[in-house]
Amino acid sequence: MSKYKQNIEKAKEIMNIQRYYGSIRALMAWDLWQGLPVDGRPYRKEVSEYFIKEQLKLIKDPETKKIVEYFREIDEDKYENLYDKAVARLLIKRYDNAVKIPVDLQIEMSSFTSEAQLVWKEALEKADFNLYKPYLNKMFELKTRIAQAIDNTRNPLDVLVDRVDEGMTVEKIHQLFSELKEGIISILDKIKYEHKSIDDSFLKVQCSKETIRNICIKMVETAFFDGNKATYWEVIHPVCIGVGPRDIRITTRFSDLFPSIFSILHECGHGVYEYSSNSKAVEYGIWGGISGAMHESQSRFYENIIGKSREFWEYFYPLLQAEVEEFKKVDLDTFYKAINKVGPSLKRMDADELTYSLHPIIRFEMEKEYFNGELKTDDFYEAWNAKYKEYLGLEPKNAREGVLQDVHWASGHVGYFQSYTLGNIYGGQFRNKMLKDIPDLYEQISKGNFEPLNKWNYENIHQYGQLYTPHELMLKVTGEEVKSKYFIQYLEEKYL
Amino acid sequence: MSKYKQNIEKAKEIMNIQRYYGSIRALMAWDLWQGLPVDGRPYRKEVSEYFIKEQLKLIKDPETKKIVEYFREIDEDKYENLYDKAVARLLIKRYDNAVKIPVDLQIEMSSFTSEAQLVWKEALEKADFNLYKPYLNKMFELKTRIAQAIDNTRNPLDVLVDRVDEGMTVEKIHQLFSELKEGIISILDKIKYEHKSIDDSFLKVQCSKETIRNICIKMVETAFFDGNKATYWEVIHPVCIGVGPRDIRITTRFSDLFPSIFSILHECGHGVYEYSSNSKAVEYGIWGGISGAMHESQSRFYENIIGKSREFWEYFYPLLQAEVEEFKKVDLDTFYKAINKVGPSLKRMDADELTYSLHPIIRFEMEKEYFNGELKTDDFYEAWNAKYKEYLGLEPKNAREGVLQDVHWASGHVGYFQSYTLGNIYGGQFRNKMLKDIPDLYEQISKGNFEPLNKWNYENIHQYGQLYTPHELMLKVTGEEVKSKYFIQYLEEKYL
Repeated sequence: MSKYKQNIEKAKEIMNIQRYYGSIRALMAWDLWQGLPVDGRPYRKEVSEYFIKEQLKLIKDPETKKIVEYFREIDEDKYENLYDKAVARLLIKRYDNAVKIPVDLQIEMSSFTSEAQLVWKEALEKADFNLYKPYLNKMFELKTRIAQAIDNTRNPLDVLVDRVDEGMTVEKIHQLFSELKEGIISILDKIKYEHKSIDDSFLKVQCSKETIRNICIKMVETAFFDGNKATYWEVIHPVCIGVGPRDIRITTRFSDLFPSIFSILHECGHGVYEYSSNSKAVEYGIWGGISGAMHESQSRFYENIIGKSREFWEYFYPLLQAEVEEFKKVDLDTFYKAINKVGPSLKRMDADELTYSLHPIIRFEMEKEYFNGELKTDDFYEAWNAKYKEYLGLEPKNAREGVLQDVHWASGHVGYFQSYTLGNIYGGQFRNKMLKDIPDLYEQISKGNFEPLNKWNYENIHQYGQLYTPHELMLKVTGEEVKSKYFIQYLEEKYL
Repeated sequence: MSKYKQNIEKAKEIMNIQRYYGSIRALMAWDLWQGLPVDGRPYRKEVSEYFIKEQLKLIKDPETKKIVEYFREIDEDKYENLYDKAVARLLIKRYDNAVKIPVDLQIEMSSFTSEAQLVWKEALEKADFNLYKPYLNKMFELKTRIAQAIDNTRNPLDVLVDRVDEGMTVEKIHQLFSELKEGIISILDKIKYEHKSIDDSFLKVQCSKETIRNICIKMVETAFFDGNKATYWEVIHPVCIGVGPRDIRITTRFSDLFPSIFSILHECGHGVYEYSSNSKAVEYGIWGGISGAMHESQSRFYENIIGKSREFWEYFYPLLQAEVEEFKKVDLDTFYKAINKVGPSLKRMDADELTYSLHPIIRFEMEKEYFNGELKTDDFYEAWNAKYKEYLGLEPKNAREGVLQDVHWASGHVGYFQSYTLGNIYGGQFRNKMLKDIPDLYEQISKGNFEPLNKWNYENIHQYGQLYTPHELMLKVTGEEVKSKYFIQYLEEKYL
């Protein structure tokens, strides 16, 4: 075997073993919500730390170093195929992270994250920002240390963003967001009075958990979800965890009807993307989604661009009417208007499709100010409120309605929020191309034919797993680099 | 640090790491029932095999070998305390198993077990013994190879039994069982006509899943179960899986009322034992139950000796009456007689307390005949039926009622069934001593005071984890080695 082949085989093997560790860590993460009893936590911490260390030990092995060095030197055009190139790129990235971030810092981060989330939960219940302050502060400090360990020549937020959305920079995001913000506020100004009068009160209907569950599962399994590759579980926070290439756990809460429907559509978007890598991507250990934004592009696509379209409900509204008596007297038009009613809101999770993107933008701007030294975490409460006042014209009454509403910062997701809004932008751009390829896409959906949609997503995006960088994939699929304009156009078409 | 101390510390560390692997393997086992989607199975197999290999690699390390050799040479009285002695004993045992059983054989066993269980399920559904035959055959062959790898100078069943019930031999079990069999059959002969006329039809009451769940959980949590150390999940097969020293998963099916109650009492017995090791046993990595029989002694104790006692129901019957209307017109005496109605049955899981022990005895005798070369697995169907006819006077109509009823052989539990009946025997002996120490035990239970029971079990059995061998523990607790007579006496007292 040539040296090249030997190194590729070895790289595949290492990547696969890394994924095995990832799989048990994902299983443990899922189990945190799903099974672990309270007194089991300290031991779980020990077990989890042991396997984090083992995983790092393996990737930092001198054997791996040699392979990494080999691939660092090799010319791009020497790669025999794209999969070889991808596995080398991803292995180098993993190796660099492992070598650069001290093990103790990684372990500290992992432990602190569990603790901080529990404090966050208490603070949220008490609407007490002061309780949360020291944890918020320490979390941002830890994330700064991690960013500096990786590359201390760049702004830490650039480093953190790049870890979640490879190839993105704060500057680039700022440009995309400025344009989008302007677009959204302009649409909002034009329609907000008209939308105020839309009656959506009938959406707050009382349903049994059983009914909600039935509707949700029938809907997603009819449309695009493969129950042999994923399971649903009921927990408080909707979340999707990938445990293996064909093993995805969707958790949600079947409490209120419409939040449940749109949550499960969202999580399914993540799930379908995560479990649909082709067999080659699985063989190379590079299965699953590429980046935060690419993942959110899929989840928000299924939730909104499909799930809040008229055609989706042309097909599914009769199901809803059959299951929930109250909707028999509401016509589809009235219903469609209600689920798309636009209006500023204090909570990201309650936001309509149009204003949603502003919520992550606010958080991203705060992170930017923090890492530029213009804002301290101790002042996050006031900064948050000021921004909501400015962009949405609303001011939270307390920290529960404001800065405490998201678990993300407590769970270590600093430099993550941009992914949601970027996901919307990506989704708009994909939609534009998808409609060129399949002009009757929505018509098919209205007839219950989801195959063209699913096939397009599989062929263009899902199957590749982590084969391409987000930038490469966007170019390959749409022929252009990422632009806000398509998502703005979509919003204008829909709302104006 | 002295060489002794160094080796003890190292032994503790190795044992703890082995337990970490055990913990993730247990989590994966639980997840098989609880979360894993169908298409996730092949990848799970890969992940699981990887960690089995890693775990074996670590225990077979030359470093471990040195420590094992050190402890093999050391005089028993050189150990500074019992925990040191136990960790050395258990490490040697683990090392020997790892070194003696070829890795490929262990992996083959693990994979074959998953496959065989799926075939068993299909065969059960179709009542088709022929479908199951080749798997049964191969399973017994694999178990023979494992036994021979460990010690080819002994009868394979002796080796297999010793792995589950350390210190036990086929000969010793045969003695205990012969005595017990005689005792049971003699009681059965005396009461079977009288019991035939007991009306227990009212126990087959229709209840909602919610009601069953409420009753079960209220009962076990009032009596002895700590919900912070364990969780309940609903799956088809009642089972208890220990994921960590304070993390136990009880799964059961809240379908029919009384099977659910007695299943959960049974699984709780396993659970409380498994999660109650003292902190020293946890520190040494020797937490959890010692042996199959010791574990079954606890589960069957809670299920029967406590859970089918008159005093237990004196306390809990009002709860049942409050939750299930039908019982308001049934008095406690009638109820107590019904739940203790004795009569031969075809299914182990449906058996009453008295005749239950005969069912595992039948299976154990078949295993004995197999390993003595007197019976082939191909003839298990007929052999099974003949034994049921002989001991219980009943003959299965098909394989579903007969040889296919238990998953055990398909799940690799060959040389395990004896544990159930031994567990009854151990339980009877513990009860005898417990009543000497706490003469008003049952009176306290009738008042809802479970503390004396729980304290006795904790102090005498549960806290020690795997500190003692089963034989040592029995001697320490009761002053005698294991004898059938106490369990027979208990049965006589209760049923005659």
